[in-house]
Amino acid sequence: MGRSKSYPLNHLFEIRGKIAERMNKIKYKIAIISGKGGVGKTTITVNMACGLRMRGFKVGVIDADIHGPDIPIALGLEKACVQGSKNGMIPPQNSMGIKVMSIGFFIEKEEPVIWSGPLVSKAIIQFLRDVIWGDLDFLIIDLPPGTGDPILTIFRFLPNLTGVILVTTPQKIALIDAQKALNLCKKLNIPVLGVIENMSYFVCPFCGSRIRVFPNINIDEKIEEWKIPLLGRIPLINDITSLTDMGQPIIIQKNEISNLFMAIIDKLLIRINEITTGEN
Amino acid sequence: MGRSKSYPLNHLFEIRGKIAERMNKIKYKIAIISGKGGVGKTTITVNMACGLRMRGFKVGVIDADIHGPDIPIALGLEKACVQGSKNGMIPPQNSMGIKVMSIGFFIEKEEPVIWSGPLVSKAIIQFLRDVIWGDLDFLIIDLPPGTGDPILTIFRFLPNLTGVILVTTPQKIALIDAQKALNLCKKLNIPVLGVIENMSYFVCPFCGSRIRVFPNINIDEKIEEWKIPLLGRIPLINDITSLTDMGQPIIIQKNEISNLFMAIIDKLLIRINEITTGEN
Repeated sequence: MGRSKSYPLNHLFEIRGKIAERMNKIKYKIAIISGKGGVGKTTITVNMACGLRMRGFKVGVIDADIHGPDIPIALGLEKACVQGSKNGMIPPQNSMGIKVMSIGFFIEKEEPVIWSGPLVSKAIIQFLRDVIWGDLDFLIIDLPPGTGDPILTIFRFLPNLTGVILVTTPQKIALIDAQKALNLCKKLNIPVLGVIENMSYFVCPFCGSRIRVFPNINIDEKIEEWKIPLLGRIPLINDITSLTDMGQPIIIQKNEISNLFMAIIDKLLIRINEITTGEN
Repeated sequence: MGRSKSYPLNHLFEIRGKIAERMNKIKYKIAIISGKGGVGKTTITVNMACGLRMRGFKVGVIDADIHGPDIPIALGLEKACVQGSKNGMIPPQNSMGIKVMSIGFFIEKEEPVIWSGPLVSKAIIQFLRDVIWGDLDFLIIDLPPGTGDPILTIFRFLPNLTGVILVTTPQKIALIDAQKALNLCKKLNIPVLGVIENMSYFVCPFCGSRIRVFPNINIDEKIEEWKIPLLGRIPLINDITSLTDMGQPIIIQKNEISNLFMAIIDKLLIRINEITTGEN
């Protein structure tokens, strides 16, 4: 594991101390991981954040995908700016009061972020250390694809991570990458709260048929093998992605899909309760 | 742009010299880029590689996605090993004779690669410098998502890149990330050969209706604005992903989809001819 050599040891203690100060005010810190890109991690993240907010919790979101920061768009904060104060950066809030931090707030929308690994890690450390998150119930962290620098930085520098939620699609390649993400968590002793199967099926808007997009995979067997609770299954429906694109997560609406997401939230709350009271 | 400081200057010249020696034997080097993950870059890469091979060309593939190396699976080389020789590494070949190099050959299938940026860059440099590619017509490089270290390494170290092919889905967030990838290419003066729209539409296997999965996006307008040739559109069909999962790219079969891919190959060949003879 490539440990960053850019900080001297005493400086590292100082950084960790400051991060701990911010993070101690946040009850639960949950990272959304997938291994593979494009399985809908961002969509799941914003719907989880909104669902928890609708259940009355105070919620923050960190967009740890420095090279593809899509959270501002998905939470309707495309035009938001970050204000500074002597205590740190003030995170923009969406219409529901969710606090958000993303590299997307600092760059032009179409500007590529061509930072190397160490710079990316520094940005993520700043999101943990220099943002005035205040008292929160939940901090949700949208991790980038892969198992590289940004993910390791979060796992190394975020104290008391409650756990990760694994998002996957029922496709062989996605499941292999999900397995890698799980193995990484195991190596680093990070609890896995549960798995969400995204793009589970497609409903034809013309004939109503339910179609499995990836038909040859027995994902249930895999989940059983993983010994992780299934939090829920979300279908591939164009409304979900369209609403994400428009900054209005589908969970805000009252329909069949928002019920699916709400059921996931409630399962998650039970699971967190189990884990944090040591009944697991 | 974060330039790697790990090589002294004379060593850098030596590396570039050795890479040039290998790469001078390869006529066209094409990178597949998307910006966003999960838009089907790997599927497009393997189908392009097989299609070019079916047209009689000698083809190699570099899997530059160190954190999610899916190319070995998608080309049926899940169990292949890399042999060494005094001249370098011998790339495994699939049943069609396509030469392949991937970090996937060196790790356990489910082992996460938790290397930091500089290590990832070193692996990619080795793929260019230390693999006995021999004489090839085409080297296709499957880039990882984002605009980070591995992509910059390829762009910095690969001499005479013929150009990139942009893969995108008709979704707002994918198009923004695609725009970032294009801006990166523009900054670095890298030619863009064309764009492939993937997951363009879905065909219901029950009623045959053609459904746009992301209905609110006018991708044609965007492509026109980009001034890049559209090489083709590929539908979201479960056969494509299933066959990728099984290591049998769909283009090998004779059907409607393989015809779509073959048409893309032929458009690409015309486009390369235009660019390399300076008619663009």
